[in-house]
Amino acid sequence: MAKQPKTAISPTRNEDYPEWYQQVVKAADLAENSPVRGCMVIKPWGYTIWENIQKHLDRMFKDSGHVNAYFPLFIPKKYLEKEAAHVDGFAKECAVVTHSRLEDDGTGKLVPASPLEEPLIVRPTSETIIGEMYAKWVQSYRDLPILINQWANVVRWEMRTRLFLRTAEFLWQEGHTAHANSEEAWEETRKMLDVYATFSRDYMAMPVIQGEKSASERFPGAVSTLCIEAMMQDRKALQAGTSHFLGQNFSKASNIQFQSEAGELEYAWTTSWGVSTRLVGGLIMTHGDDDGLICPPRLAPQHVVILPIINKEETRTQVLEFCERLRQRLRSLRWHDDPVEVHVDARDIRGGEKSWQWVKKGVPLRIEVGPRDIENNSVFMARRDTGEKKSISVDEFVGNIGTILDNIQDTLYQRALAFRTENTHKIDSKADFYNFFTPENQEKPEIHGGFALAHWDGSAEVEEQLKKDLKVTIRCIPFEGEKVPGKCIISGRPSAGRVIFGKSY
Amino acid sequence: MAKQPKTAISPTRNEDYPEWYQQVVKAADLAENSPVRGCMVIKPWGYTIWENIQKHLDRMFKDSGHVNAYFPLFIPKKYLEKEAAHVDGFAKECAVVTHSRLEDDGTGKLVPASPLEEPLIVRPTSETIIGEMYAKWVQSYRDLPILINQWANVVRWEMRTRLFLRTAEFLWQEGHTAHANSEEAWEETRKMLDVYATFSRDYMAMPVIQGEKSASERFPGAVSTLCIEAMMQDRKALQAGTSHFLGQNFSKASNIQFQSEAGELEYAWTTSWGVSTRLVGGLIMTHGDDDGLICPPRLAPQHVVILPIINKEETRTQVLEFCERLRQRLRSLRWHDDPVEVHVDARDIRGGEKSWQWVKKGVPLRIEVGPRDIENNSVFMARRDTGEKKSISVDEFVGNIGTILDNIQDTLYQRALAFRTENTHKIDSKADFYNFFTPENQEKPEIHGGFALAHWDGSAEVEEQLKKDLKVTIRCIPFEGEKVPGKCIISGRPSAGRVIFGKSY
Repeated sequence: MAKQPKTAISPTRNEDYPEWYQQVVKAADLAENSPVRGCMVIKPWGYTIWENIQKHLDRMFKDSGHVNAYFPLFIPKKYLEKEAAHVDGFAKECAVVTHSRLEDDGTGKLVPASPLEEPLIVRPTSETIIGEMYAKWVQSYRDLPILINQWANVVRWEMRTRLFLRTAEFLWQEGHTAHANSEEAWEETRKMLDVYATFSRDYMAMPVIQGEKSASERFPGAVSTLCIEAMMQDRKALQAGTSHFLGQNFSKASNIQFQSEAGELEYAWTTSWGVSTRLVGGLIMTHGDDDGLICPPRLAPQHVVILPIINKEETRTQVLEFCERLRQRLRSLRWHDDPVEVHVDARDIRGGEKSWQWVKKGVPLRIEVGPRDIENNSVFMARRDTGEKKSISVDEFVGNIGTILDNIQDTLYQRALAFRTENTHKIDSKADFYNFFTPENQEKPEIHGGFALAHWDGSAEVEEQLKKDLKVTIRCIPFEGEKVPGKCIISGRPSAGRVIFGKSY
Repeated sequence: MAKQPKTAISPTRNEDYPEWYQQVVKAADLAENSPVRGCMVIKPWGYTIWENIQKHLDRMFKDSGHVNAYFPLFIPKKYLEKEAAHVDGFAKECAVVTHSRLEDDGTGKLVPASPLEEPLIVRPTSETIIGEMYAKWVQSYRDLPILINQWANVVRWEMRTRLFLRTAEFLWQEGHTAHANSEEAWEETRKMLDVYATFSRDYMAMPVIQGEKSASERFPGAVSTLCIEAMMQDRKALQAGTSHFLGQNFSKASNIQFQSEAGELEYAWTTSWGVSTRLVGGLIMTHGDDDGLICPPRLAPQHVVILPIINKEETRTQVLEFCERLRQRLRSLRWHDDPVEVHVDARDIRGGEKSWQWVKKGVPLRIEVGPRDIENNSVFMARRDTGEKKSISVDEFVGNIGTILDNIQDTLYQRALAFRTENTHKIDSKADFYNFFTPENQEKPEIHGGFALAHWDGSAEVEEQLKKDLKVTIRCIPFEGEKVPGKCIISGRPSAGRVIFGKSY
C-alpha cells in the first residue's frame, strides 16, 4: 500500500478545510487572533500582501479619476439613524463609545467617566458621516461628481470570527461618490465593479463572477448591490467585493441637494464600493495547497528567496557572495513596473527546515545555491505553484525572470478558473439541487457542491427556503452569458434567467 | 501713503496668526472640522500631502530594516493599567467603548445595549497591546530584534482641538521595536530620530533641532523621550516627532521575556517612535504666507499646474492641445524617482480666480499658456515660493524642471532656516528671559520671542515656574553643539549646558 505523502500542513484540505485554513494562516505567519475579542493582528507577511493589494488598487482608483480623503472614525448615533434600512443593518453589531475618560472609583479601580451626551458608533461603514460632509460640499451641479475613496479600519461586532474572512475590526477601502444623475451613478457602480474584477483576475489570479445581489442580500440602504463572487477550494463562494448603487436614499437621509443645470433643486445620486482584508483570505483559499500558502507573484511580498547551501565552512564566503550578487542583479530588474523582490535567507538553520518555511509562506520561486552550482554558474530553482524543480543557468534565470513570474501568475489563474468551471453545474430540478448541496450525498461528503446555475422565480420565499434547508444562497444574478428564461426549480414559476447559487463564507 | 498690498488670506500672519492658519487650511481646501467633536475631515488636497509624507517615510523605515504590521484598534482596560505612568498619562482623555449593540428602548429610540464585560479603550497609542503580542512572539534572543511599524488612527480626547495640530482622532505611524540589550535599543531610538530629522529637512524643507525632552515632558512610561522641534512663523515651537527609549518598563508590564545567548531569562528593551498628521500643520506654518499654502515640491500633490489662457473661442483647441502636449512631456519625466505631477486646469472660470486658487493651494509652479506664448514656443512661469514670474521657452522649462523644483525646495528650506536662526537667542539673565517671552515688551507684541538658549539647573521647579509665569517650556536639551557649563538663569545653580526654551503648540 502506497504511503500517504507527508504534507507541511495538517490537516489537509480534504481532511478538514476550515482547520487547514487556520493552519495555513499560522504556518505562513500571516495573522493571529489578538487578546481583543474578534480583532486580529495582521503580521508582517500578511500585511505586506495587504500593502501590495492597496498599492495596485489605489493606482487603479486614481487612474479612474478618484482621490483619497479621510473621514472620522466615529459616527454620532443620530446620523446612523437617518437611513432606516441602514441602521437596522448595523445597529445590532457595533462598538458604542459612551465615555471620554477613565477615573479612579475610589478603590483604585478605573471606571468609565465623563459620559458623552450622545453615544458615538465606531464606523461600521461611512455612508452616513460622509453624506453629512457631501451635503455641505455640494451646492451646484458644478460641484459634482465627487469621486472620493477612503482607506480605513471599520468595526462590526461579529459573533463568529475567522482570521481575514470575518473579524470585528478589519481594514478596507470605501469609495463614496455623488453624481448629478442616475445614469452617471449607475455607470460608476458598474465601473468600480469592473475595477474589482480586473484586479481579482490580474493581481489575485482569482477568477470572479460579476453580478447583482438579490434584494435580500443587498447592502442595508442600497437600491442595488453588485458583487464579485469567487469560488474557494472547498467549493464555497466568497463575496470578494461589492459596489452599491444607493440611488437617492442616502442623499435624502443626509440632504445632499444641488442646483441642477436647469436650475432645479435636486438630490444627488450616490454610490459606495469596497473591498477589505477579506481578500487576503480569498487569496489563501484560492491558491493554497497542502503545503501552505501560494502567493500570486503580483502580490507576493518576495518574488524570489535565495537559499545559500553551505555544507563546508570554507565555502561560506564564496556562496554568500554569489548569492548577494545574484540578489543585486535581480533587484535591479523591474517586473510590471515594480522591482523584483528578492531575499537572501542566510540564517544558520537546517537547510530543509529553512526551505519548508518559504514553501509554507508561498514565495513563488526558491533558488538554492551551493558550491557545485557556482562552478556551473547555475542555480537550482523550485517553483511553488507547480513544484517543478530544475537546475538552470544563472543567465537564463535572470534573463527570464519576468517570463517565469508571468507564467506562475497565469498558471495560478488558469488552475483556479479550471477548478471553478469543473465545479459549476447547471441544475434543473429540485431533487438534483438538494442532492448537489447535501454533503452526505456526495462522493466526497466533506466537500460541498460548488456553484449551481439554476432558475429562480425572483421571490424571497424561495431564497428563505433554500437558506433554511441547505444554507444555500443566491450568490448573484450574473451579468455574463445570455439570459435564457426558464422555470424556477422550486416553485415552477417563470424565471428570467439562471442565477448562481452556492454556500458561502 | 503706500497702500497695503492686498493678500489672499485675511487676516495676515502679523494680524492674527492662529486665525491666519485656519484661513489657510480653508483656502487651500486641506481639511475641515467634522460634526464629530474634535475629529477632522482631511480633504483630498490635504490627504495627498499626507500620502506623500507616508510614501517617503515608509520607504525610509523599510530601508532601515522595518516592516509594517497592524494591531487592534481597541485596548482592553487592564492592559492600559499595567504600566502605571502610562495609564496616568492617557486615562484622562480616551474614548471608552462600553457596549456592542444599539437597541430600541421600546419608544423607538436606540440606546446602547449588550454591555461589555470589560470596557475597551480606543487606542491612544499602542505600546500595551503590541507589548502583549511581543510577549507571545519572543522566546529567545534569536527572535530579537523585532522592528515593526504601524500606520494607524489613534484617539485622544483633547478638549481644545485645531485642524492637524491637535485633533481627537489623528493619523500617524507608530514604530515599536524590541531588542536584546539596552545599547541596541538606544541605537534604534537615536536612529529613528535621525530618520525624522532627515525627512523633515529633505522633504518638508523644515529645519528641526534634535534633542532630549526633560523628565516632565517625557512620554508616559518612557525612560527617555527624544524629539525634533521646529520653529513656526509665529516663533512658537512645534514638536514634530518623538522617539522613545522605553527601557524595560513596558517589557516588564507586558512580560516580554527572552532566553539570552548566555541562557538567562531577561526582559527585552523596547522603543517606540511616531509622527502624525500634525506634520501637515507644521508644513503649513513653516512655509505658508499671506497668500496661502506653499507646498515644498517633494510633498506637493501637484508640482506644476498649467493654466490655459483662452481669450478667444477660436484659439481654444490650439491652446488646450498645446497644454496637453506640455503636460505629457512633463509627466514622462521623473524627479527624484517620482513622476513630475502636472495638472491642466481647463475649467471655464475667470483666469484670475483660477490662478489665485492654485496660489492658495501652494502649487510650486503655475504655467500660463496663451496664443502668444504658443507662437513663441514659450510659457509664462510663476514660482509660488519667490513670486518670480517670467516668460521661458518650453524647452528650457521642460529641460530644467528638476533643477527648478530642487531650487524651490532649497529656497524654502534656507528661508525657514534663516528665520529660525534670526529668532534663536542666547539669553543669560532672568530679566532678559522674561522680557523675551513677554509679548507686551516686544516691538511686535503679537509675535512671541522665539527660541531662547539658556542655562537650566535640571530641576522641575524651574520648569514649573516658567510654565506658570510665561507658558514657556523646555523644548529640548539639544544634541548639537558643544556643552558649555553655566548657571541656571532662574536659580543660579550649576547647569551642564544650554537648553532650548520656547512657547509651543
